[in-house]
Amino acid sequence: MLDRAETDAGSVGAIMDDIGRRARAASRILALSPREQKDAALNAMADAVNAAMPAILEANGEDVAAAQEAGMTAAFLDRLTLNAARIIAMSEGLRAIADLPDPVGDTIAAWERPNGLKIERVRTPLGVIGVIYESRPNVTADAGGLCLKAGNAVILRGGSDSARSSRAIQAALADGLKAAGLPGDAIQIVPVTDRAAVGEMLKGLAGNIDVIVPRGGKSLVARVQDEARVPVFAHLEGLCHVYVDASADLTMAVEVVANSKMRRTGICGSAETLLVDRKVAASHLAPILDALAEKGCEIRASAEVRALYPKAGLADETDFSTEYLDAIISVALVDGVEGAIAHIETYSSHHTEAILAEDEAAVAAFFAGIDSAILLHNASTQFADGGEFGMGGEIGIATGKMHARGPVGVEQLTSFNYRVRGSGQTRP
Amino acid sequence: MLDRAETDAGSVGAIMDDIGRRARAASRILALSPREQKDAALNAMADAVNAAMPAILEANGEDVAAAQEAGMTAAFLDRLTLNAARIIAMSEGLRAIADLPDPVGDTIAAWERPNGLKIERVRTPLGVIGVIYESRPNVTADAGGLCLKAGNAVILRGGSDSARSSRAIQAALADGLKAAGLPGDAIQIVPVTDRAAVGEMLKGLAGNIDVIVPRGGKSLVARVQDEARVPVFAHLEGLCHVYVDASADLTMAVEVVANSKMRRTGICGSAETLLVDRKVAASHLAPILDALAEKGCEIRASAEVRALYPKAGLADETDFSTEYLDAIISVALVDGVEGAIAHIETYSSHHTEAILAEDEAAVAAFFAGIDSAILLHNASTQFADGGEFGMGGEIGIATGKMHARGPVGVEQLTSFNYRVRGSGQTRP
Repeated sequence: MLDRAETDAGSVGAIMDDIGRRARAASRILALSPREQKDAALNAMADAVNAAMPAILEANGEDVAAAQEAGMTAAFLDRLTLNAARIIAMSEGLRAIADLPDPVGDTIAAWERPNGLKIERVRTPLGVIGVIYESRPNVTADAGGLCLKAGNAVILRGGSDSARSSRAIQAALADGLKAAGLPGDAIQIVPVTDRAAVGEMLKGLAGNIDVIVPRGGKSLVARVQDEARVPVFAHLEGLCHVYVDASADLTMAVEVVANSKMRRTGICGSAETLLVDRKVAASHLAPILDALAEKGCEIRASAEVRALYPKAGLADETDFSTEYLDAIISVALVDGVEGAIAHIETYSSHHTEAILAEDEAAVAAFFAGIDSAILLHNASTQFADGGEFGMGGEIGIATGKMHARGPVGVEQLTSFNYRVRGSGQTRP
Repeated sequence: MLDRAETDAGSVGAIMDDIGRRARAASRILALSPREQKDAALNAMADAVNAAMPAILEANGEDVAAAQEAGMTAAFLDRLTLNAARIIAMSEGLRAIADLPDPVGDTIAAWERPNGLKIERVRTPLGVIGVIYESRPNVTADAGGLCLKAGNAVILRGGSDSARSSRAIQAALADGLKAAGLPGDAIQIVPVTDRAAVGEMLKGLAGNIDVIVPRGGKSLVARVQDEARVPVFAHLEGLCHVYVDASADLTMAVEVVANSKMRRTGICGSAETLLVDRKVAASHLAPILDALAEKGCEIRASAEVRALYPKAGLADETDFSTEYLDAIISVALVDGVEGAIAHIETYSSHHTEAILAEDEAAVAAFFAGIDSAILLHNASTQFADGGEFGMGGEIGIATGKMHARGPVGVEQLTSFNYRVRGSGQTRP
């Protein structure tokens, strides 16, 4: 591991260029690798991670000690700390990825032209994926495995606080790749902790990175979105809404709102704002808000909500544009589904929104009128997750409208091309 | 029409921001517009273009006179000049777009989860498309029509030499939109000819442009790709290859190579390099090159090709990385399909490549080993076109690997989202 003292900007550039070139070369080999070989590599990677457990735990112990010395928070230390169970979960995750279908080579569409040309649209790997993450060492294995399954090489740049752990995990992954006859360069980790290395990745390493996936907090994602000169799969925020229509089943609404907000408050799919149809405010607000309060949720409500539910605190305008990621919810009344659409299109981060309604016309209006990655009817916003969608894991959730939107699973890590078969056709 | 003298950077920024906001507002209305209304607008636009023929011809006459005075080339003047037939072709193009299927609302995939959640992936409009083009006034109608069909608003920025013509066409399109009850802002044209306006578009107009499509020569596309902070659908070059395998049918090869190169030499799908399997060089080179030479093609060949075909000129290394867009072809020998793949992966612009072969194993290796947008077997590279693919028109061809690759038709101008229907499911 090189540290800041040993590198300068020029050498970081040279190191990163070399990583990019090696990733591109590896990606060409992966693109031709059959499913059996990729799956054998994933299983060998799982074995290698288990076999390397002592080395990984030792490296992680050093990272944790340094982080403790630096006075990091308990939550930070929890994310950073590995133990035997977490390492086994990582290797089981790799085996689960091996069991997923291989998207590469799938025919997405096929048709024939009047002149006899047979056209197919076929999935291909994207190429090289750059993953920039914070101090969660398990991302090393998750992201490495998902990218490999889709036939892509990956360049990992983990947080400097977890550098020793990530490096030990990556070494095991590279051993697994080589055991299956694939290049270790298919999963590389950036060996320098300079921020300049991230800058080089965001510039695309001279065309050798096809897409960047940031995994971490808002400031990381914001920097990546601001500076990246290559496509980015990301969401900056999950400012998710739940709208309770006048036609909603109240019992269902109480349960789904509580789950949307309180199951886990720190994930991007947790609800941040509750909108209630003004027509049923008198009957519906109290039971829904009581259930939230009972679970320990702080309620910040508009003045008219407080008039009906005085226990609530008063929301200011910033509350409706705040992703709390905490046990807090903002609450407002709206005039039916059109009012809900207007509020959501103003404040939403276009991640996930839910409607609770029995009136199909209201659901249809909500689905047509809101341009978010995931729209749900009568279900919790916490289902916004690749695993819950049946994608077998995700590298993140994207709110952009290009290529991958919503959960980014193995299939979203592919591109496609056209393959045309003729019998000597020339164009008139 | 404002010209450079009447605007400064600040006012350009304000004008462009206003255009962006109006486009976004129009896009929200278009997203909810049913197929019937969009198609009625396309037909009304066609009628309005025909009705405006005198005004369009007058405006075009002024553009052409100014371009003649400025000493522009004959080819430039030909692209710029409109006549009755070209205007009618424009309106017929709009009617043809009305007849295409509407991609918006199509269910791309649907599945059910074990917990009863029903998940659909549904096509949605992209939002606002920015089209930056050179002095081909017909792009105004083509691009406006294709974007509208997919439910998108469009901001058009045409070449300054065709500004009067494009403006007259856009006025007719806006009339057609309004006749069908849609906002005229759905198809706007930038009213200033400052280069700064292009710069503002490339920055994305404060989030109000979702994708940029450049239509024009290499320097325009290069500027857009270098400066754009939003996604771009484009190809910088079409450095297309034809490989003649030892197993090729020689008669077919002679015809397909000649068509790939010489049908039209100025389009992006025309072949620029011919690769011939060394095993059949003695028998195949002469008939293929004779046919090209007979059609007026200049041949620039490697030394070993010249040894077998002395009439050829000598290619230098730059020839194999040059997109001639002219009646010139570079020729080299390669060792079978693996040699062809190695050459193409080194020099290709990843646009379109063809293999001529009867050996299916060679075709399979070529299709798997080359990462270009379009791969053809026993067919001319000149089929690289949305119309020829049955897409009913294209706004361009993309060589990026994200979202749209190959011809960009109506379907590629859409995004998608997930719509999930439940019955009260909460996440455990």
